[in-house]
Formats: sequence, C-alpha cells, structure tokens
Amino acid sequence: MSETERYQTHAPENLEERFAHRAAHMKPSEIRSLFAVASRPEIVSLAGGMPNLSAIPMDVMASLLEKLVRENGQEALQYGSGQGHPKLREQICDVMALEGIRANPDDVLVTTGSQQALDLISRIFIDPGDVVLVEAPSYVGALGTFAQYEARVVHVEMDQSGLSPEALRDAIKTLRYQGSRIKFIYLIPNYQNPTGVTMPSSRRTEILNICREEKIFVVEDNPYGLLGFDRPSPNAMRAEDSENVIYLGSFSKTIVPGFRVGWALVPPTLREKLVIASESSILCPSNFSQLAISSYLANQPWRDQIASFVNLYRVRRDAMLETLDATFPKSANWTRPKGGFYVWVTLPAGIDTKAMMPKAIVAKVAYVPGNAFYADGLACRCG
Amino acid sequence: MSETERYQTHAPENLEERFAHRAAHMKPSEIRSLFAVASRPEIVSLAGGMPNLSAIPMDVMASLLEKLVRENGQEALQYGSGQGHPKLREQICDVMALEGIRANPDDVLVTTGSQQALDLISRIFIDPGDVVLVEAPSYVGALGTFAQYEARVVHVEMDQSGLSPEALRDAIKTLRYQGSRIKFIYLIPNYQNPTGVTMPSSRRTEILNICREEKIFVVEDNPYGLLGFDRPSPNAMRAEDSENVIYLGSFSKTIVPGFRVGWALVPPTLREKLVIASESSILCPSNFSQLAISSYLANQPWRDQIASFVNLYRVRRDAMLETLDATFPKSANWTRPKGGFYVWVTLPAGIDTKAMMPKAIVAKVAYVPGNAFYADGLACRCG
Repeated sequence: MSETERYQTHAPENLEERFAHRAAHMKPSEIRSLFAVASRPEIVSLAGGMPNLSAIPMDVMASLLEKLVRENGQEALQYGSGQGHPKLREQICDVMALEGIRANPDDVLVTTGSQQALDLISRIFIDPGDVVLVEAPSYVGALGTFAQYEARVVHVEMDQSGLSPEALRDAIKTLRYQGSRIKFIYLIPNYQNPTGVTMPSSRRTEILNICREEKIFVVEDNPYGLLGFDRPSPNAMRAEDSENVIYLGSFSKTIVPGFRVGWALVPPTLREKLVIASESSILCPSNFSQLAISSYLANQPWRDQIASFVNLYRVRRDAMLETLDATFPKSANWTRPKGGFYVWVTLPAGIDTKAMMPKAIVAKVAYVPGNAFYADGLACRCG
Repeated sequence: MSETERYQTHAPENLEERFAHRAAHMKPSEIRSLFAVASRPEIVSLAGGMPNLSAIPMDVMASLLEKLVRENGQEALQYGSGQGHPKLREQICDVMALEGIRANPDDVLVTTGSQQALDLISRIFIDPGDVVLVEAPSYVGALGTFAQYEARVVHVEMDQSGLSPEALRDAIKTLRYQGSRIKFIYLIPNYQNPTGVTMPSSRRTEILNICREEKIFVVEDNPYGLLGFDRPSPNAMRAEDSENVIYLGSFSKTIVPGFRVGWALVPPTLREKLVIASESSILCPSNFSQLAISSYLANQPWRDQIASFVNLYRVRRDAMLETLDATFPKSANWTRPKGGFYVWVTLPAGIDTKAMMPKAIVAKVAYVPGNAFYADGLACRCG
C-alpha cells in the first residue's frame, strides 16, 4: 500500500478499505469446511486430532469439579493472574520433568490451549515479511497463525528422522543472503503433526546447535510427547537448551481439551513481553479451568491415565497400518509412527488427494489432503 | 524503521533486534504493579473491577457442574466449535433481548472474556497508525490492546451524559483533514469504566447517526448494562443499529468471571473474519466453560441472581458516596453512578493522585490514579 493510498480525507468508500492489511489473510481454508463434514456422526474421520475421551473417568472428574466449587469457589470462579495460577505452574513443571526438563514455574505462562501460545509468540516476534521456518509439511493451525501475522513461512525438508540439518543450513544461508529476517523455527519433534515422524536425540542436538549459533529461536511444540507407544520419547529439546528454546505444552491430549489449558515455558528474557501480550489478548486464563486441571493432577493417577490413552491409540495405529498393508498398492508408502495421532500416506504421482475427497466422503471417510500442510497450499513434497 | 535496517545478512546482534516492532509497546504499566499490591488481603481495594461473588450459590453451581460432566462429559470436555457452542449463542441472544437487541445466534462469536473480543476486533481493523476513538478517560485494558496493535488512540471529551457529539464531530473533522484513517470508536455507554457515567438514549442516537454517516464502526462494550441500581439501563446502541455496531458482552459481571466467557455480536459482514481470527488465536473457546454458563442460564433464576448482585453493589455505591460527601473537601467533585462499579473523583488542581498512592497504600487503601485511563498517561482532563 502506498503512502498516498493510506490518506483518507473522507469516509471510506467500501468495507475492504476499512479492514487492516492483515485481514486479507483471514479467508476460510478448505480444511475448515472439511472439518465441518468430518464431524458428522456418520463419517469415520481420519481428519482432525480429536482425542478419544473414553478413557477419562467421568464420575471422578465430576466429583473433583463439584468439590472444587464447594471448597474453593470464591477463587475458582474469580478473575486470576495473567500469567496463570502459581500452583498449576508448579505442577506443569512436574509434568515437563518427565521429558527431562528442569524449569522454574516463574517461566511458565498458562494459555488458552497451546494455540494461544503460538499466537502470542507470533505477536512478539513477527513483523510482516519476517521468516518463520517450519517442517515440510507442518501443522495447519500454526501455519494459519503465522499467516495472520503476515510471516513468510519457509518449509524445510524432512527425512525419516525429521527436519534435515543440511536443508536447514542451506535455507538459513539462502534467506540471509536474500536479506530476510528469520525469527524462529517451529518444530514438533515427537510424532509430528501431520507426518507422525519423531526426531532422534542426536538430530535434536544438531538442530539446536545450528539455531543457537544462528540466533534463531526454536519453538518446540510438544502436545504428543507423553503418547509414545513402546518407549518414552527422547528428551525434549528444551531439556538441552533453556535459553534458545520456547517450549509449548498442552493438556488437550493427555487429559482433556475441553478446558483449553496449554502453556509456554520461555527463556526469562521473553517472559514479561509474553505475559503482557497475553493480558492484552485475554486478560487472564480461566481460573476454573486451571484449578480443574490442577485438581485432576493432584488427585488422579494421571500417569496411569495417560498409559490407558496410549493403549487405546496403539491399537488404532496398528489397525491403521495393518489396513494400509493389506489394501494399499505397493506404489504407495506411509510413515509408521511410534506414538501420537498421525500417519502420513504418500500416493503414487498422478493421484490428486484433494480431488479424491468427495469420493471418500461419499464412502463415509474423511482425511486431510496433504497440501493443507504447506503454507503455499501446493501439492505434497514430503517423501 | 528504514528498509535498509530491515535487511539482515547475518545473525541478529541483540535481543531487541529479534522482537517485532509492536513488542516495543509491551511494557509493564504502573497499573499492573498496582493490581499486585491491591490484591493483598489487608488492602481495601477500590482499584479493579472484581465482582463480589458472595451472591453466587456455590452449592447450586457445584451440582450443575457435576451433572454437566456426568451427563454430557464427552461433549463438555472435547474440542468445540471455533465460533462457540450453538446453544449458548442462542441463550446469549435471550440475554441481549433484555436491552432491546434482536439478534441472530449466527452473528454471535463466543470469546475468552470480552477482552479477547477487543483483541480480535483490533486484529481485523487496526494497521499501525490507524486511529481508534475512545472516551476521555477510557478502560485501561482496551487502551493496552489498541496500543499493541499500534493504533493512534484519540480521546474525545465527555460531559455528564457521556461522549460529546460536538467533540466527536470536531475530532473526526480534524483527523480526516490530517489524513488519518479512523477505524472505530470504542464506547462503554452504561456505567462507564472508569467514570460511572451513563449515556442517555438521545445521546446514543446522536452518536450512532454521526458514526453511521462517517462510516466509523461503533464498538459498544457493555459488561455492566444489567447492573442498573434503580431502573433498567437505556436500550443498547446495538438495538438501534445492527449494521454499524459491534456489541461486546460478558458473563463476568452478571454470573462469574472465572469461566472467561464473553461474546461479540457483529454485523454479518464481519463475522467470518472474526471467527477465523479467533480460531487462529485460541482454536476454540472452552466447551466446558460455555456449557457451564449455558447450564446456569437454563437452570438457575439468573435474573433474580443479577438482582441480588445489584442490591449488593447499590449498598456499596451509597456507602462510597456518603463517605465522599462526609469527608472530601468542597473543592473536589465526583460522579454519582446509577449502576455498575465505578466512581470518578476529581481533586483540586495541584494534587497529584499518582504521587499520593504510596500514602494510600500505607493507609491500606488502593485506587487507580486517573492518568492510567489516558493513552498518553497524562493527567486527567475529565471534569
């Protein structure tokens, strides 16, 4: 937009003129209409990462919430701290310790799901045109947020061990040569959304070293880390680097998503700006939601609970892989995830999975075409 | 920032260089540290708008929540719709009908408190340098959000009937002459935060006409509308104009704030962008929180409940005004609010209420100095 166009000596002529520049990026995506279809009860949905709540003891949860209001309603139903409840922030540190993280509750910000953490990180870092590096492919919800902050999203190739360090070095070199400002890299190291790929420890170290040296923050999104099927996940990247890693966690996949409680663990240098950004965005997270999760963690054997989730998801992963083995052609290939929710299938060249969607819906099955996981929406480039 | 400075052919030199431009506005305000002091139990706080929850029947609330999880846990604890639960959106329309609003639930977006609605509206409208008009003085939380989106906030004088139409016309004329883009005006017509002033019907109509003609959206923030002490509030501005008014509501002051449930009722032309902005910001509001409020509205005599809140707050308003009458000098004056939470006191020239704060804290009383309610933080200019 030129400076002249910005001047406005009269009322605006039309609605478009009244929106902010960034609003041009707020268009309905194809995946949004897909989710509407996928949530119909008659459809077998392989589309969204909706946790299976059948393993949650509803009677226990009901009693805990009743007790919470009876005994501590004045606090649970009042406004709370912008940064999040101190007790829950301590318990969050205990949860993260399972993946090797040593953290101070002062460095934890509780958010309305980890999606809000993505939004706040984008807010403090991204000017229009700044570069955000992401895996190829990457989580569609993160791509949407980065787009709203008018980032230039650059995908970096993956192999069977996750993001390729060589591809990362090349991308940084090229982007810096072009004069681009690289703000952070967004990674899902465990059971990645959408590929299901997990990054081994040595690869994590390599990526951390590159990013530290290049002063590029690592945003480690880890909602599935505790959902390893056969063995625990490798230590979190944050366990190895507390100064250059922003860690995002969530209770949506390990307890329930309905309270919308996630968090960010951040280097102390970023904490104040993130808290202020969050207060400006929602004033404070729900005290009730936070104390509900806190009470569940304090009173329920939550590690056993997660183990029962894991059993549930392992059976489903096995069923999926067996069906793929039995029914898909040899010319297709797919990932074999060791945890989490996602399998990524690559079909032979010439098959357009987006065009195939309506046929799948008629057959009462929904999936997400791979192009949704690329910022430019192009066909999948992941092997 | 010049184009040259934006180029970066090497790693950034320091942390400041890594933040977005807008992050410069994310600094702790004086009012933040004040709230920390004011929430200490030994302090009589006249500072924040914390509702008094003593009128809430905690046993009823506890039972409703227990029943919600037992009977509908699979839905209440799962992810929900980005726009908000359809049933609650219908009930919200019933609540708004009390202030003369006829609305379609399709035009309601449920938010994490009405603060999130302020954030989303800022997101779809404000480019850096765009003008937002506000009352002089205005709600500190809104000023903070507008600042993060790098708006130029322009205060418009008030009189005893609220925002002055003459001052508004003058401001628009001057700003348009300067080539400024005016995006919206932010108003709290009932028991305004912080002055307690209410805008009569005729004044509302006048302001609406000016804004419609000038194509400036009216953001009507109405958390206190149902808290009139002696008679119902005038009809909402949205009741008179469904195309140019964005209405914000909240259950924080009429039920409880701990669930963080607010909403925006928007013209259909804005709905899609706001829903997409909200999904990018938090994915979806808490299903549990929404169904908790929904169940309370369906099962509790909530109008009677609000009446008991009103009785509680009337007694406190009376005590405040009686004390001011009895103890304050004739050279001071103050507003006499007909509802809501706030009294605005103007002291004789020469008394610096900010400098007086430490003395008040020693005497175990907290208040908010008037300069906090001005974007430029200058001394109060409200008569």
